[in-house]
Amino acid sequence: MEFSNYLPIWNKLTPQQQQSLQDAVVQMNFPAGTIVHNGSLDCMGVLVVCSGQLRAYILSDEGREITLYRLFDHDICLFSASCMLRNIEFDVIIESEKDAAAWIIPPQLFGKLMEESLPFSNYANELMSSRFSEVMWLMEQVMWKRFDQRLADFLIQESQLEGTTVLRLTHEKIANHMGTAREVVTRMLRYFQSEGMVKLTRGAVELTDLKKLQALQS
Amino acid sequence: MEFSNYLPIWNKLTPQQQQSLQDAVVQMNFPAGTIVHNGSLDCMGVLVVCSGQLRAYILSDEGREITLYRLFDHDICLFSASCMLRNIEFDVIIESEKDAAAWIIPPQLFGKLMEESLPFSNYANELMSSRFSEVMWLMEQVMWKRFDQRLADFLIQESQLEGTTVLRLTHEKIANHMGTAREVVTRMLRYFQSEGMVKLTRGAVELTDLKKLQALQS
Repeated sequence: MEFSNYLPIWNKLTPQQQQSLQDAVVQMNFPAGTIVHNGSLDCMGVLVVCSGQLRAYILSDEGREITLYRLFDHDICLFSASCMLRNIEFDVIIESEKDAAAWIIPPQLFGKLMEESLPFSNYANELMSSRFSEVMWLMEQVMWKRFDQRLADFLIQESQLEGTTVLRLTHEKIANHMGTAREVVTRMLRYFQSEGMVKLTRGAVELTDLKKLQALQS
Repeated sequence: MEFSNYLPIWNKLTPQQQQSLQDAVVQMNFPAGTIVHNGSLDCMGVLVVCSGQLRAYILSDEGREITLYRLFDHDICLFSASCMLRNIEFDVIIESEKDAAAWIIPPQLFGKLMEESLPFSNYANELMSSRFSEVMWLMEQVMWKRFDQRLADFLIQESQLEGTTVLRLTHEKIANHMGTAREVVTRMLRYFQSEGMVKLTRGAVELTDLKKLQALQS
């Protein structure tokens, strides 16, 4: 598909701006497990996802992680061009969870369009607001929600994403998504197992009672 | 002071835009304890603080609070005009902690300037990014930092803000700032007291060993 189909404000750009985008964007492939963007260590440019699945997360000094949001087809992420974003003072890491392909808008062109195109600037504003809302939602979850509810949420969401009730996820991986320690995940999963909601096997979690898990969510 | 001094991009606006701002902004006073903006329940407009101290916080369904950031002289808050911000899907409450005065840019004018002024749109972007960074910082604190360190941080910061080591704060108030339960604050303050770092009296916390509190922070 053409790059122009991925940018909702394409028709609000001038022919020159459209041309400079056409000339500058490159499509890249990221096999599953690639670190696509590593905080302030690089400034690859704006990521416009064509296919696959990526996750954006933050990392603590001690190596703990928490997933901020997922990126799918047609999603746009500005943080991989954070060198061009004034006042962004945090580091987001983006990795491909499944094989992914994306267009990259080079950071200089992104900066130039921000300086000269009002529709582009407003659109960047909207993207930023969306991410902000996602992070605030996550913050509220972390602050106010019980861990059993959050874990039930996570398992159900993963099951929907993968289209299966057998999730190939280690406890460590789950902990990295949720920003907690592996032991905390293991303890809660064992409790879920004792309640018949999941079945634990090596490297996998099988959801055996979706209804009961869903009842936990509310 | 003139309103124009509070808007860093004033000189990048057209004379018409400057005039419409001059005509539309109003100055308001908020005695300490006023709920200045209450999430999606109102849309007062952009808040441009002239004096005093306000705090922006979120509220859980169960009535728990956490302070997101403080606003002082010359700070600008967009969230009190969130009806004009696309994709902002969370509710921020703003209350004056001390007597405060602020200019208000009406939401319609804010929306109009966003639509027609590139410098204004980019400036709004920068403001949004700053708030985003503050919230990410807070999220990292909440996620990764031990509660004793966060409480030491908070007490030292309040002491600097108030210019005194005797803080007139109930445990409930501290809990509302930090997004935790009163009991958790009380328990930790008692521990601090047993270590000689604070002295607890009715309705107040006196910092008795700043050095030891500061040592906790790092």
